[in-house]
Amino acid sequence: MTGSKRNLKVALAMPQAVADRIFPARVLDTLESGTTLLNREPMPEFTSERSLAILADAQALVTGWGCAMVNQAVLDAAPNLRYILHAGGTVKNHVHQACWDRGIQISTAADANSIPVAEYTVAMVILANKRVLQVARKIHAQRTISHAEDEFPFLGNYNKRVGIIGASKIGRHVIHMLKAYELEVVVADPFLSDAEATVLGVSKVSLEELCATSDVVSLHAPSLPSTVNLINAKLIASFKPGATFINTARGEIVDQDALLARVQQDDLYAVLDVTTPWELPSDSGLYTHPNVLLTPHMAGSLGSELERMAMSTVGEALRLARGEALRFRLPADQLELTA
Amino acid sequence: MTGSKRNLKVALAMPQAVADRIFPARVLDTLESGTTLLNREPMPEFTSERSLAILADAQALVTGWGCAMVNQAVLDAAPNLRYILHAGGTVKNHVHQACWDRGIQISTAADANSIPVAEYTVAMVILANKRVLQVARKIHAQRTISHAEDEFPFLGNYNKRVGIIGASKIGRHVIHMLKAYELEVVVADPFLSDAEATVLGVSKVSLEELCATSDVVSLHAPSLPSTVNLINAKLIASFKPGATFINTARGEIVDQDALLARVQQDDLYAVLDVTTPWELPSDSGLYTHPNVLLTPHMAGSLGSELERMAMSTVGEALRLARGEALRFRLPADQLELTA
Repeated sequence: MTGSKRNLKVALAMPQAVADRIFPARVLDTLESGTTLLNREPMPEFTSERSLAILADAQALVTGWGCAMVNQAVLDAAPNLRYILHAGGTVKNHVHQACWDRGIQISTAADANSIPVAEYTVAMVILANKRVLQVARKIHAQRTISHAEDEFPFLGNYNKRVGIIGASKIGRHVIHMLKAYELEVVVADPFLSDAEATVLGVSKVSLEELCATSDVVSLHAPSLPSTVNLINAKLIASFKPGATFINTARGEIVDQDALLARVQQDDLYAVLDVTTPWELPSDSGLYTHPNVLLTPHMAGSLGSELERMAMSTVGEALRLARGEALRFRLPADQLELTA
Repeated sequence: MTGSKRNLKVALAMPQAVADRIFPARVLDTLESGTTLLNREPMPEFTSERSLAILADAQALVTGWGCAMVNQAVLDAAPNLRYILHAGGTVKNHVHQACWDRGIQISTAADANSIPVAEYTVAMVILANKRVLQVARKIHAQRTISHAEDEFPFLGNYNKRVGIIGASKIGRHVIHMLKAYELEVVVADPFLSDAEATVLGVSKVSLEELCATSDVVSLHAPSLPSTVNLINAKLIASFKPGATFINTARGEIVDQDALLARVQQDDLYAVLDVTTPWELPSDSGLYTHPNVLLTPHMAGSLGSELERMAMSTVGEALRLARGEALRFRLPADQLELTA
């Protein structure tokens, strides 16, 4: 092992505050166990003398949120740089087109970041089919215990259909996790081939069929010009009575006014981790309707889950140092289809 | 198939209302596809002329909640009876000792009934480690979206320990399901051998260590004279600050006053699907403290999940008709250790 640990010179680039949260000492120790780590104290910028000296040596940059832009000037200062390994989901804010042009290999922790979103989603699916949160709310409000089924018929996580909109990384992870349950899972995604759907082990249906037939509809599409308002008033009107709509993706993909109007008819439930705007006005009906659960964009990585992303990135560096390929390499041509 | 379908004469015994909920026509059709079903309309008692005629032929009884007691008189009327297949979790209320004495084989749907409890538990573990419900409650109360981590540090389902008290059917199912997550799982159970713990893939620890070190503690022990107050004031005081205690087992296993007192110190969270008494007095502090989520004993089978139990029982009958052994046979010597 000692012989191979000098195989990759790694530099850390992000604000110190981000490193403190995401790269605690035990994570840096793991990184250093298999690579030559040039700086345990991260570079918050690429212009100081210290940074330029580090860049001159670096073969790989390990980056985090708030990393300065890696542009042509940075590349000129880093003649040996071949890899940018990002401990976050999106590289749009710090990987300049010049990096792609030079053939720098880019890796992200989007896979690791999809795990908590999928976990949150599956937990909400299970609670939704049993109406757990609505029943609990009533019990706390009325201060009396009553049988759940008296008010809510058709409970249960059996013989129910879950519709996944978008076979994205997160959508696929949700599909995979739901295999552990006795639920029927269908997916709608215009970019998913029948062969891929077969591999995923789910039925591919149209968006219209999915919305009209699912007991729980969960949105996992990226926010793109073409997906704004994808879940429009017509689709929202088609949801089954008593269905639950879960959005952990982006608010603007949904016609929020139509969603609220349907919720207020009292036959639709909504779990919204994202809204438009993110900070809803205080008079929004979404705050007050008992069928809505709002959470503040927290399905994704938080707290210790940030360390999972860092460990994913460390894993990439260790792979490179051992002469292996990146596992989570981002193809340039997929940039526009990812969130 | 046709040749073998006459291999078992099955009689249905339960109130009609129970059959309507648990054994819809599609379930009875499946049962009838592989056995000789003597009565689609169930026997609510064992004394009428009609019931006595059915019992005279029956080799297996398929029973549901509220089935009349199968005592010596019933056995005398059912000379061919060899199996009682129960579409519920417990047979204490309708299987008389005389059945065991005659060597009748007993099967239950306790396995199928453990699935929804485990699913509820896992969902609550995931939400607890992210403080999802507490954050949501605050957002709805204050009508403003704020970042979860500002108020709740150490969130996340990574580098967290989940303690399972009781390697019961449900406890084991929870352990199995949690393997899909990056959580450390420990178990405490005086009847679990080290070898069994190894097979389950979890570390066995003392109850004291489990309570003092777990981020989430989930109770899956049976209610027995020896487990009343098992989770006593001393153990409750030892819970980690910010831990979550989940009880889907029975209220009397926990010192509820000590639990409430600790919750009211504001550094413990509780998800209670069972309480003592089941119907709490309206002035109970458990209704009002924001760290408590009460649900009305709904983690177990409800709605469509009842059909899963019936299908499990139908599976047993089909196995017998094919000459196979029961899969969920209840050993007489375990009766006293099960809930």
